[in-house]
Amino acid sequence: MGNLFVDVGMSLDGFIAGPNGGPRNPLGDGGMRIHEWLHPLAAFRSRLGMDGGDQGRDNELVESVFARTGAYVMGRRMFDEGEVGWPENAPFRVPVFVVTHKPRPPWVRPGGTIFTFVTGGIGSALAQARAAAGGHDVKIAGGADTIQQFLKAGLVDEFRVDLAPLLLGRGVRLFDQVDPDDLALEILEAIESPLTTHLRYRVVK
Amino acid sequence: MGNLFVDVGMSLDGFIAGPNGGPRNPLGDGGMRIHEWLHPLAAFRSRLGMDGGDQGRDNELVESVFARTGAYVMGRRMFDEGEVGWPENAPFRVPVFVVTHKPRPPWVRPGGTIFTFVTGGIGSALAQARAAAGGHDVKIAGGADTIQQFLKAGLVDEFRVDLAPLLLGRGVRLFDQVDPDDLALEILEAIESPLTTHLRYRVVK
Repeated sequence: MGNLFVDVGMSLDGFIAGPNGGPRNPLGDGGMRIHEWLHPLAAFRSRLGMDGGDQGRDNELVESVFARTGAYVMGRRMFDEGEVGWPENAPFRVPVFVVTHKPRPPWVRPGGTIFTFVTGGIGSALAQARAAAGGHDVKIAGGADTIQQFLKAGLVDEFRVDLAPLLLGRGVRLFDQVDPDDLALEILEAIESPLTTHLRYRVVK
Repeated sequence: MGNLFVDVGMSLDGFIAGPNGGPRNPLGDGGMRIHEWLHPLAAFRSRLGMDGGDQGRDNELVESVFARTGAYVMGRRMFDEGEVGWPENAPFRVPVFVVTHKPRPPWVRPGGTIFTFVTGGIGSALAQARAAAGGHDVKIAGGADTIQQFLKAGLVDEFRVDLAPLLLGRGVRLFDQVDPDDLALEILEAIESPLTTHLRYRVVK
C-alpha cells in the first residue's frame, strides 16, 4: 500500500494562502507568490497545457511527485476554487476524491482526471483513493482544512513543505488547528534550491 | 565593516519561544525543544564550560557562527532571562550591547564577555557593536522583539533560521510584528541535518 503524503507550499511565516481566498482568488491575496518557483517549470507548464519551461533539479522533483501520485484527496473548498480555474484538461491526470457534504456524480475530464465526490468523510475518501491508486502514493492536494483533518486523524505518513523565502503576514496558517502533540516529525531531507527550500519529513506514529 | 545578522531557532510553525517565558523559564514552555539539536554539540558545550560533545557538520556550523561574531546586540528581556542562567564565564566571549531603558554600568564577565547597557536605542547599540567588532560581524542575539525592531529599521543584512522539525502551537512568533513589505529575502543556502535545517537568507535592500 502506498503512503499518504502532503506536499504544500508555505511562506517562511507559516502561511499556505493569503487572506480573502475564494473561486475568483484561488490562493488568496498574495498567496500565488508562495508558488512562484513552480510556475516556470516544464513539468508544471505541461500539466496546464503549456509548452516549454525550465528543466533542472526543481523540475525533476516536481516530476517525481507527479509520478508517485496514484490518486489525490482534496477538500471541497479547494475544488470549488479550482473548478473555475483549471483548464478543461485538468492537471491531476489520475482519480481525485473530493471530500464534501453535497453528493454529485463523478466529473470526468479529458487527460485522466476523474473527480469523485465523497460524502462519507476523510476516511472514506482515503480508502477510495488508496484503492484507485493501484499501489502508488496518495497525495492530499489541500487545502489547509483538509490537511489538518488528516493530520489530526494521524493518517499522514509523509509531510513535504516547499518553503518560500518570503513573508505573507496574514492568511491561512498551515498548522493553526493542529495540536502539536498530534504531529511528531523526523527530517528525511532538505534540498536547497534558488527560489524555495524543499523540506521532507516523516510523520512519526 | 561586518554584516549584521540574525541566527535564530524556529519551530516549523513559526515560534522562536514557547509561552510564559521569563527569567525562570528562559525559552518559555517547550521552547527549549527548538534548540535540542544544539545541546549535544562540542562547540555549544564548551561555551557553557562543559567538556566533550558531538563533532561533525552541525558543530562546524556553530563554530563558524561563533568565529564570525565580533559583538552581539541583545534585547533587555533576553538579558534578564539569561543573567540568572548563564554560567559566570558567560558564553559570548566578546562585547554584548544590551538595549534597555535602564542605565547600568558595564558588567564584565570572565572569558571576554562584557555586557554594555545602551539606552540610546537600537541604532546606538548597533554603532557601538560595530565599533567593538573590529571588522567582524555583529549578531543580534535576540529576543523576538529586538530582532523585529532591527528588521523594521532595515538594518539586518543576513537572516539565518535553524528550523526545528516540530510544532510548538503557541508562544512567540518570530515574524508577528514584521510588515511583509519590510523584509525581502533571497535564499543563500539550505543545509540538511538530522535534527534541524539550516536556512540562510540575504536580506534584499
